[in-house]
Amino acid sequence: MNTPTPTPSPATGAQAISRFPVPDLNDVPEDIRTRILEVQAKTGFVPNVFLALAHRPAEWRAFVAYHDALMLKSGGNLSKGDREMIVVATSAANQCLYCVVAHGAILRIYEKKPLVADQVATNYRKADIPPRQRAMLDFAMKVSQRAQEVDDSDFARLREHGFDDEDAWDIAAITAFFGLSNRIANVIAMRPNDEFYLMGRLPRKG
Amino acid sequence: MNTPTPTPSPATGAQAISRFPVPDLNDVPEDIRTRILEVQAKTGFVPNVFLALAHRPAEWRAFVAYHDALMLKSGGNLSKGDREMIVVATSAANQCLYCVVAHGAILRIYEKKPLVADQVATNYRKADIPPRQRAMLDFAMKVSQRAQEVDDSDFARLREHGFDDEDAWDIAAITAFFGLSNRIANVIAMRPNDEFYLMGRLPRKG
Amino acid sequence: MNTPTPTPSPATGAQAISRFPVPDLNDVPEDIRTRILEVQAKTGFVPNVFLALAHRPAEWRAFVAYHDALMLKSGGNLSKGDREMIVVATSAANQCLYCVVAHGAILRIYEKKPLVADQVATNYRKADIPPRQRAMLDFAMKVSQRAQEVDDSDFARLREHGFDDEDAWDIAAITAFFGLSNRIANVIAMRPNDEFYLMGRLPRKG
Amino acid sequence: MNTPTPTPSPATGAQAISRFPVPDLNDVPEDIRTRILEVQAKTGFVPNVFLALAHRPAEWRAFVAYHDALMLKSGGNLSKGDREMIVVATSAANQCLYCVVAHGAILRIYEKKPLVADQVATNYRKADIPPRQRAMLDFAMKVSQRAQEVDDSDFARLREHGFDDEDAWDIAAITAFFGLSNRIANVIAMRPNDEFYLMGRLPRKG
Amino acid sequence: MNTPTPTPSPATGAQAISRFPVPDLNDVPEDIRTRILEVQAKTGFVPNVFLALAHRPAEWRAFVAYHDALMLKSGGNLSKGDREMIVVATSAANQCLYCVVAHGAILRIYEKKPLVADQVATNYRKADIPPRQRAMLDFAMKVSQRAQEVDDSDFARLREHGFDDEDAWDIAAITAFFGLSNRIANVIAMRPNDEFYLMGRLPRKG
Amino acid sequence: MNTPTPTPSPATGAQAISRFPVPDLNDVPEDIRTRILEVQAKTGFVPNVFLALAHRPAEWRAFVAYHDALMLKSGGNLSKGDREMIVVATSAANQCLYCVVAHGAILRIYEKKPLVADQVATNYRKADIPPRQRAMLDFAMKVSQRAQEVDDSDFARLREHGFDDEDAWDIAAITAFFGLSNRIANVIAMRPNDEFYLMGRLPRKG
Repeated sequence: MNTPTPTPSPATGAQAISRFPVPDLNDVPEDIRTRILEVQAKTGFVPNVFLALAHRPAEWRAFVAYHDALMLKSGGNLSKGDREMIVVATSAANQCLYCVVAHGAILRIYEKKPLVADQVATNYRKADIPPRQRAMLDFAMKVSQRAQEVDDSDFARLREHGFDDEDAWDIAAITAFFGLSNRIANVIAMRPNDEFYLMGRLPRKG
Repeated sequence: MNTPTPTPSPATGAQAISRFPVPDLNDVPEDIRTRILEVQAKTGFVPNVFLALAHRPAEWRAFVAYHDALMLKSGGNLSKGDREMIVVATSAANQCLYCVVAHGAILRIYEKKPLVADQVATNYRKADIPPRQRAMLDFAMKVSQRAQEVDDSDFARLREHGFDDEDAWDIAAITAFFGLSNRIANVIAMRPNDEFYLMGRLPRKG
Repeated sequence: MNTPTPTPSPATGAQAISRFPVPDLNDVPEDIRTRILEVQAKTGFVPNVFLALAHRPAEWRAFVAYHDALMLKSGGNLSKGDREMIVVATSAANQCLYCVVAHGAILRIYEKKPLVADQVATNYRKADIPPRQRAMLDFAMKVSQRAQEVDDSDFARLREHGFDDEDAWDIAAITAFFGLSNRIANVIAMRPNDEFYLMGRLPRKG
Repeated sequence: MNTPTPTPSPATGAQAISRFPVPDLNDVPEDIRTRILEVQAKTGFVPNVFLALAHRPAEWRAFVAYHDALMLKSGGNLSKGDREMIVVATSAANQCLYCVVAHGAILRIYEKKPLVADQVATNYRKADIPPRQRAMLDFAMKVSQRAQEVDDSDFARLREHGFDDEDAWDIAAITAFFGLSNRIANVIAMRPNDEFYLMGRLPRKG
Repeated sequence: MNTPTPTPSPATGAQAISRFPVPDLNDVPEDIRTRILEVQAKTGFVPNVFLALAHRPAEWRAFVAYHDALMLKSGGNLSKGDREMIVVATSAANQCLYCVVAHGAILRIYEKKPLVADQVATNYRKADIPPRQRAMLDFAMKVSQRAQEVDDSDFARLREHGFDDEDAWDIAAITAFFGLSNRIANVIAMRPNDEFYLMGRLPRKG
Repeated sequence: MNTPTPTPSPATGAQAISRFPVPDLNDVPEDIRTRILEVQAKTGFVPNVFLALAHRPAEWRAFVAYHDALMLKSGGNLSKGDREMIVVATSAANQCLYCVVAHGAILRIYEKKPLVADQVATNYRKADIPPRQRAMLDFAMKVSQRAQEVDDSDFARLREHGFDDEDAWDIAAITAFFGLSNRIANVIAMRPNDEFYLMGRLPRKG
């Protein structure tokens, strides 16, 4: 059976999207291909992470399942924009190009704030965000950079801003999961699709 | 149907194994309970990570799937002992009590070296390990602490010790996955079972 | 005589551009106003740094003179794009929102590369730049973060990439000057104009 | 006169206990030999530090005198277990294999807690210790890692937990002395006796 | 017209004062020579910074103008001694030999305290200075080492010690300017004049 | 019997030399008093360390014995000036005011170089010292700041400069001992005698 080739990211040219072999979409297992085609249909292109990680199907499945459990989760006090903001701030601290660029795009779209991703990535303390998101990012950055020091006082501070303990778990787990993603992306030199850089920056996308 | 309660870790007493609620084994989803009972049958007790993370079944499943994809993988040049050694060294750098103690036990058993876990956890440069494992840990520690600086020279050095690029991925992915685990364990204050501390230290286990 | 008010940055709304009082353009000394109007004529808006620092006219004059001596200098082997790239990389290390956003825009325009500023700001080791610019940024980052360790070997490495000692001075002086700028901008909470975020990202500016 | 040779640590095999020459017990000065034989009689083996440092008799004498002044001191509010706990926590921060392993054993015995040494060495903030010992270790870690910042507030916090200024001196001096020991042990690659790894881990030692 | 050669610093001997060419005083532009001769007349010798930076006249002029705007400024609550103290403390943190030695001399003279420069350079927390200067240096060191974290609480703490927001700008700008100077001096290996080392140390200078 | 009171350091005035009680010379044990009087006779005043540490006689004796074993040792390739230079460089890294000031004085005298102590304390890479002393300090600084990473390559580099393994032990032990001294001095706020600041700075001592 023939699968339609995903539209290649035109500006990328011959730039490799990974230091490792990247499978052709026709060669990936059926379940992975199905999900990739769904993403392509929704986004208009295939984010490189889906192809780069498909080099390892078992890891791909666990990665995507983990991602979905954390980022598509319903319930709790974290909005989708909150979740993406955590990703951008902590990925910037880990200097992960893929995650800052790709999730920066999603953050702009969810928050409907074209400037917020660059602000959060550069110095989240100067971003146009309310104290609640500032407290959320303070906790995420502590989990990212020195989780061994987290203690009761961190949970107490989150509660002052309306985050309960389950929200704290969410913040920590998102931070931890993207810490994993950041490290793998840096090691395999995963390249963000060129499309992400501009997404969500213009008033409306035509 | 009644599921046999796992033998509680006797020395733990009233010590909480997580800052968060820990489900009763009878209340966890069937697939999770099945796996936990398998582990209990093999190990003789239920490692606390299985119960503590079951507070979040979707995350539990992704976590265990990821773990299995990396740690039970066949093929490649990493032995099971190599894999556990990576976990111990990088978890010590992240000051994760659960992972150092639990995987230290498994490392001692796989490597049949009762001293190696404490050595690797304290200062892996002074451990009784061959240059090959030393190079493996040098790379793992770089991925753990400053993955943003990984470059071609790191892959080249690994190749000098017989690790190909797929092995490098394995080392990096194990490091990254346990970096996730370390952060969650530190945030939820996950307590290692008392049994782990002594496992693999005595000539033979009676 | 009446000076035309510069077009306010519309998206900024009521956002303060500095923690300190910002003078009205009509109230700044003549020489400063002249330069600001020139910049406005060329750029289409007044970059906030010109107004925020005008709170201190003597410092403004020295700052602009220093900037011009380094950034508008002719001669040497550094292109204008090289100079801006140094600013973006080192300002990102110093987490200076103003400089990353404003000079990121200029970098995109000079280099005619819409992606390069985000790459350099996030992890310059993964940017689409040739080895020559990579060596330039390695030196700039060392000057920015640990100038006390600079020695002969740094100059030698630059020479391998065609940078002579005068170029090394240029790289170091630009890094040092924007290190000053970064610190002041962070202390006074200087806000980049909204216009900068999008500049140079689209194929042509209409 | 013939001195009985100390029982060699059997598992060590041909492993060197120091990068430097280690004197034969028959060749060390009389006062040193006497002390070593006393320790052997009490412990059942000769801790390697006594032989490794005997390469320099004058330093050996000062080292042992300093050790005894701090660790065998009577009076004050620090128990022997407290003292060993300080050694283990700060030696782990300095990544000193000898001190973590050897003093970890003594800590387990003094505190009658088979798990505490591994906990304190990995992340003392997660150890099963009361707030008083936690405050003691917070101070010790500050002295170990950034003594230049110690000020009145540190003494005040200790007093809240029942430690007077003389106790603060004790904590600081133990930390400082083992900081010396850690550095020498790391430079000479001093190897802990294999016996230490297991001591104090079993309910009773036969 | 012939300009009198400045008295060479006799103890320097053949020691280069910069890694870069140092112009002869007769060859520097008239305005620069005039200022240098003024300084020489006042100080008794030409501080090396004036000659070393004259290699780049445009930068020299901006550097001196900036210096004067910050250090010769009248008004505000910072004394000349306060200003020099900021320079010494932050230059020590940046390990800049020229600035610590040259401004240490000026600090001793302005404060009429022969010991204070060495104290501030080594550990300002142990210097013989009142709480007001201690708070000033705490802020300066934060600006020097982690300006990205400066926030309202820093301004509030300064106010408790009588420093208003304009004083905060002064402290920050002096810190930032000498951070620039420190980096350039370290890169060009600028050598302090031997005369500075002793200035202000003796009860009276004859 | 009456002991002559040591000449008090006149400029100190009422400045405490320690946060802890300082014994009167008449009250210290005989052996300690004898040594202090010897030092006073030779130096012209009593260095504060001798009185401040006499608060703890047993520690005083071990401290002085250790000091003498390392600093008064004959044999080996380290001159007295070399030894003091190690103390100054590493004590500056540890921000210890007492040791930088007191041993800076001794360094100036032994090396007959009035500038060298300030150079080594501020940035030893810029000091007027030959490559041999530079290599010695590189090793000392590694032992001081990250002894856990010392390995064969460090010993090899020392050998290139004529230092054998016994010299390496000397450098490491001096560094480790003064690391102890630095921590205690910082905790007890030990104040250097005012006399030290000027010693060795003038062409001849009158």
